[in-house]
Amino acid sequence: MKNVTIIGATGFGGLGLIEILLRHPGFKIKQLVARKDVGMKINEVFPHLTGFCEAVVEDPENIDYSGIDLAFFSTPDRAGMTLIKQFLDKDIPVIDFSGDFRFNDAEVYSGYARFKNMKDEHLCPDVLQHAVYGLPELNAEKIKTAKIVGNPGCFAISLILGLLPAVEKGIIKTDGIICDGKTGVSGAGKNPGEANFYPQRYENINTYREGKHQHIFEVENLLNSRSKTPVNILFIPQIIPMTRGILSTIYASLTANTDTKEVLEIYREYYKDKPFVAVTDKSPGTADVKGSNRCIVRPMIDEKTGLFFATSVIDNLLKGQSGNAVQNANIIFGFDEKTGLDVPAFYP
Amino acid sequence: MKNVTIIGATGFGGLGLIEILLRHPGFKIKQLVARKDVGMKINEVFPHLTGFCEAVVEDPENIDYSGIDLAFFSTPDRAGMTLIKQFLDKDIPVIDFSGDFRFNDAEVYSGYARFKNMKDEHLCPDVLQHAVYGLPELNAEKIKTAKIVGNPGCFAISLILGLLPAVEKGIIKTDGIICDGKTGVSGAGKNPGEANFYPQRYENINTYREGKHQHIFEVENLLNSRSKTPVNILFIPQIIPMTRGILSTIYASLTANTDTKEVLEIYREYYKDKPFVAVTDKSPGTADVKGSNRCIVRPMIDEKTGLFFATSVIDNLLKGQSGNAVQNANIIFGFDEKTGLDVPAFYP
Amino acid sequence: MKNVTIIGATGFGGLGLIEILLRHPGFKIKQLVARKDVGMKINEVFPHLTGFCEAVVEDPENIDYSGIDLAFFSTPDRAGMTLIKQFLDKDIPVIDFSGDFRFNDAEVYSGYARFKNMKDEHLCPDVLQHAVYGLPELNAEKIKTAKIVGNPGCFAISLILGLLPAVEKGIIKTDGIICDGKTGVSGAGKNPGEANFYPQRYENINTYREGKHQHIFEVENLLNSRSKTPVNILFIPQIIPMTRGILSTIYASLTANTDTKEVLEIYREYYKDKPFVAVTDKSPGTADVKGSNRCIVRPMIDEKTGLFFATSVIDNLLKGQSGNAVQNANIIFGFDEKTGLDVPAFYP
Amino acid sequence: MKNVTIIGATGFGGLGLIEILLRHPGFKIKQLVARKDVGMKINEVFPHLTGFCEAVVEDPENIDYSGIDLAFFSTPDRAGMTLIKQFLDKDIPVIDFSGDFRFNDAEVYSGYARFKNMKDEHLCPDVLQHAVYGLPELNAEKIKTAKIVGNPGCFAISLILGLLPAVEKGIIKTDGIICDGKTGVSGAGKNPGEANFYPQRYENINTYREGKHQHIFEVENLLNSRSKTPVNILFIPQIIPMTRGILSTIYASLTANTDTKEVLEIYREYYKDKPFVAVTDKSPGTADVKGSNRCIVRPMIDEKTGLFFATSVIDNLLKGQSGNAVQNANIIFGFDEKTGLDVPAFYP
Repeated sequence: MKNVTIIGATGFGGLGLIEILLRHPGFKIKQLVARKDVGMKINEVFPHLTGFCEAVVEDPENIDYSGIDLAFFSTPDRAGMTLIKQFLDKDIPVIDFSGDFRFNDAEVYSGYARFKNMKDEHLCPDVLQHAVYGLPELNAEKIKTAKIVGNPGCFAISLILGLLPAVEKGIIKTDGIICDGKTGVSGAGKNPGEANFYPQRYENINTYREGKHQHIFEVENLLNSRSKTPVNILFIPQIIPMTRGILSTIYASLTANTDTKEVLEIYREYYKDKPFVAVTDKSPGTADVKGSNRCIVRPMIDEKTGLFFATSVIDNLLKGQSGNAVQNANIIFGFDEKTGLDVPAFYP
Repeated sequence: MKNVTIIGATGFGGLGLIEILLRHPGFKIKQLVARKDVGMKINEVFPHLTGFCEAVVEDPENIDYSGIDLAFFSTPDRAGMTLIKQFLDKDIPVIDFSGDFRFNDAEVYSGYARFKNMKDEHLCPDVLQHAVYGLPELNAEKIKTAKIVGNPGCFAISLILGLLPAVEKGIIKTDGIICDGKTGVSGAGKNPGEANFYPQRYENINTYREGKHQHIFEVENLLNSRSKTPVNILFIPQIIPMTRGILSTIYASLTANTDTKEVLEIYREYYKDKPFVAVTDKSPGTADVKGSNRCIVRPMIDEKTGLFFATSVIDNLLKGQSGNAVQNANIIFGFDEKTGLDVPAFYP
Repeated sequence: MKNVTIIGATGFGGLGLIEILLRHPGFKIKQLVARKDVGMKINEVFPHLTGFCEAVVEDPENIDYSGIDLAFFSTPDRAGMTLIKQFLDKDIPVIDFSGDFRFNDAEVYSGYARFKNMKDEHLCPDVLQHAVYGLPELNAEKIKTAKIVGNPGCFAISLILGLLPAVEKGIIKTDGIICDGKTGVSGAGKNPGEANFYPQRYENINTYREGKHQHIFEVENLLNSRSKTPVNILFIPQIIPMTRGILSTIYASLTANTDTKEVLEIYREYYKDKPFVAVTDKSPGTADVKGSNRCIVRPMIDEKTGLFFATSVIDNLLKGQSGNAVQNANIIFGFDEKTGLDVPAFYP
Repeated sequence: MKNVTIIGATGFGGLGLIEILLRHPGFKIKQLVARKDVGMKINEVFPHLTGFCEAVVEDPENIDYSGIDLAFFSTPDRAGMTLIKQFLDKDIPVIDFSGDFRFNDAEVYSGYARFKNMKDEHLCPDVLQHAVYGLPELNAEKIKTAKIVGNPGCFAISLILGLLPAVEKGIIKTDGIICDGKTGVSGAGKNPGEANFYPQRYENINTYREGKHQHIFEVENLLNSRSKTPVNILFIPQIIPMTRGILSTIYASLTANTDTKEVLEIYREYYKDKPFVAVTDKSPGTADVKGSNRCIVRPMIDEKTGLFFATSVIDNLLKGQSGNAVQNANIIFGFDEKTGLDVPAFYP
């Protein structure tokens, strides 16, 4: 039994971790930490946890490092950047949900930070060289021994899994890939405001940060590491009236003639040993993955235009966040990758 | 490992059973049976089950009785009435989701059937005397040895659990109890039609079958068996724009002066050993129980009017249907009542 | 053409007024005033108004009183209490959306204020004697000459219209009337927060302020003025996952034997000249009134229990707020009561 | 006052017409005709019309042609194809909502029909040469004297208005235009079934008919008539959990270097006299147009990739259907184009 601490326990990321770890045979929650709701029991914040998890939320000042085997940081960009170092100095590995450790290099990080209009100086630049991008489908070997894992962004994971085989196998032209992403409102976290105000959100779909979302940088950075040609993406995020789920539609030109059958085979081969990526030739929907750690990818070639097209669906709070994080944790500690995550979607 | 057959496997009741049994260490699904979708794999009906349950749906003609330890009938009223006898004759216990075996007596059944405007003749009247009303909080002892369990209606279970202590302890006058029930649309099952047509259902709440819902009969019948005075209920069901969940508000006059504190104590005492009933003094919502087998009850006395008031919330597809059924199955086979059911609500 | 000023123009109440007045042949918006969004054009606050209304939102400091025939105050309780006096002193009539002028007497007001846990001292007690409760179905004569009209609360209007004939005609016992109210989330106004956070609100119904909602006081106060016996109400408000609409279910004991047919006749007679109250013998839903100023009432007697039951549905932002206010304004200026309001519901 | 008949009055198209014509000073509904709900009053089908329109739905056998100035056919593809001829033979102009008269040529129609997997023989080929594509922003002159107007498809109108200036002015390459369309569920009409079953639709987004939707053919056909180079589109329709609204995102390569400022100017110039097309540089959402006949278009150039991108939003039941049809009717009879349609969106 490994002991874990969750920093940022009172948001949706923290909640997702708690719910998974409750049914995980290998991890035990030792401490819940947050800046908000300090002193409350977690089931006062989330009443449905009553009887399952009733730990008191502790202030970051009161972190107990003793006997901790792993820390999850479910904190916003830059909020945990220096605190993470405390854990690393004590040889406690960290899985971080923010963008702070998704890059190996302070300069690359600065590019990401500027995309998001944040301060662009990294506060622990020396740690970055040890950071591993937490995409288990790609980096399982590195994750096994990682001290600090940068858990990917939710849109990023959906886009990367939809594009990876096509980019790596050179099927598509990588300049001018079009990514059209639709997300449920929980993607913005547990932060009530105008964008997730019920009367503003029901019966509404709108675009936002068109071509400016920081996950563009993250996706390009990752795909460039697997592509022979430079990757240049236009990504248009959109919010739709649902709580969980991301459906991305992805378009690109082909490098050479091919058809849906061939592309399906390449995708199926690519993901054949990946328990959480399902390749299909049917139209997937987010209802197929709500509550599960699965990503469903459906690549096809449109005969009329000769364009490549892929759909990719995930639950943004699971494969797009806490589910993927536990998958990484399983790899770090040598558990079966599926431990605690092997449940079907919650339907209807 | 006990083998179970699910009759009516392609509706929401059947799906709920499959999802719970997938994580249950004591039961194994041996056969899925239905009249609809025969010959399809269950994951063609419910794509999210792919990789978890891919059994072919069999016609009732092809039921395999060998080695079956238990049958769940998730079929509409009167649809399984005679087929159930086949199982009982082979000494296979049955848990039935319909109203067919919720009463011990053919004449009482007829009263129920007339409430629902159905034919009122029971087709297996001799079996009825062995039928046990499947409310584990009340009938656990009888359920242990039951051959045929009539799993309660969803509204009925919510109302009974909200009223039972007050009725049994004589706190309230039982003539003229008012039950105001709000249900999500899944209560009508997996039957697309006008009432659950998205454009008709979003942004809408309406009453239906005012004072005529068959659960009135069911609730009165059960409560009368625990009350010193005759129970007479007015129940107004309402549909609201959500998929899962029932919230019932219950009103009654007091028999003698009391206050919220006393009533809370009585309720807490009454349910202290019942793992799936939580008594609270806060305002519960259906989001607190979505995806869980929990019923939350909140009794109070309104000082100004001196009236008794209780809120009762459940997930209509779990404590209101398949979750409660598995709880009954656990009792029949001597498993801990919570086996397979001990998960928190799915939030958000 | 009468000139009107809207104070509190940037909330849902102000928006509702603007939308109605845009199609009203007798009123012209002269000025929009608010504390929030000052200096913005109203169509920057509400983009859908672009091309229809693009007035700049003015600070209350800059109110222009010249040539104003009427002021609507769509402001919270106590926010406009003293500012209203400025208008009255200049002989400009005011229709106020808050609870500040719904009572004729400072002491009665104090009772209301305490119900809402506010300061209970009225700041313009001398004005109260001239205040008229803005229910046009009851007070049309007084409204004609009123200087200050207190527009009713949304739940209050739904409950009063559902109860008025039964109370006035002595059909029901007035002690222990039960009111079960379900509202869409816009009832709390344009104030993003936990209660209307999309992920918290979809798939959820919960009760709140059980027996403590200030509209209890308002309803009792009004009904007492029309009842031979004292009115004592238990009201349980509930929020459901929709934006607009209130459905109230109302229960009471009968004073003497009667049936649905008789009660329907009494209700139909009572409301026969009221263009915005429709009496029906079918099950109404809020979808029938969304976008309209109509209130649909459905009284019935439950034969089995002998209880009185009524359903009452309105659009909380129209008949429950700005629609009712314009109806009052029409009466004040001698327009046909339906002017600007005679549109069917917006469906689907 | 012109008399109109609505064929197909009991669907969403018919309802939309009724609601608009109720407030239109120039048209009067003479007869409502449908195959479904014959003999019912229209307010029994749509209760919210009670008091506004209570005409009886007539069988197509009982059409009264006398004194009719215009017929709207809100019927499915091929359902009214021959009946329409009866009206034309009597010199009554027809506005048809189906795809039957959106093309001038039987052979082109056959191409459309095959896209939709229908019989491809047109039954009134001689009429086709007189058919006018009912896009008032483009064909107002032809519509003035048209006998038969083919009202465009909802997705088609959203895509065409988003693309027209860019295609006509040669800004974008027309081979490989990518159209990503998101629609509310009312797009499939008033036909309860699996795709609009509430529990299947809430919390879900899925693609369908990928690259196979018949509006591809319709859009290409129209744009080819205004383009110097052949238009080849990949269109991926998607359903999202809302009732009304279409948001299309459109992507294309540029023919020559340009920027957002220039493209905005071109679009603004192109639509400057079109009252129902608004060009913006902000992120539009469907909530901005719900209940209105407006189309909001937002063109931009993504600097990083050099790609053209446009968002186009409409209410699929208004500018995408009945609103656009009344706009056409206004043009035919010489009314101001905006008559009956000049209302802001319904918000929230």
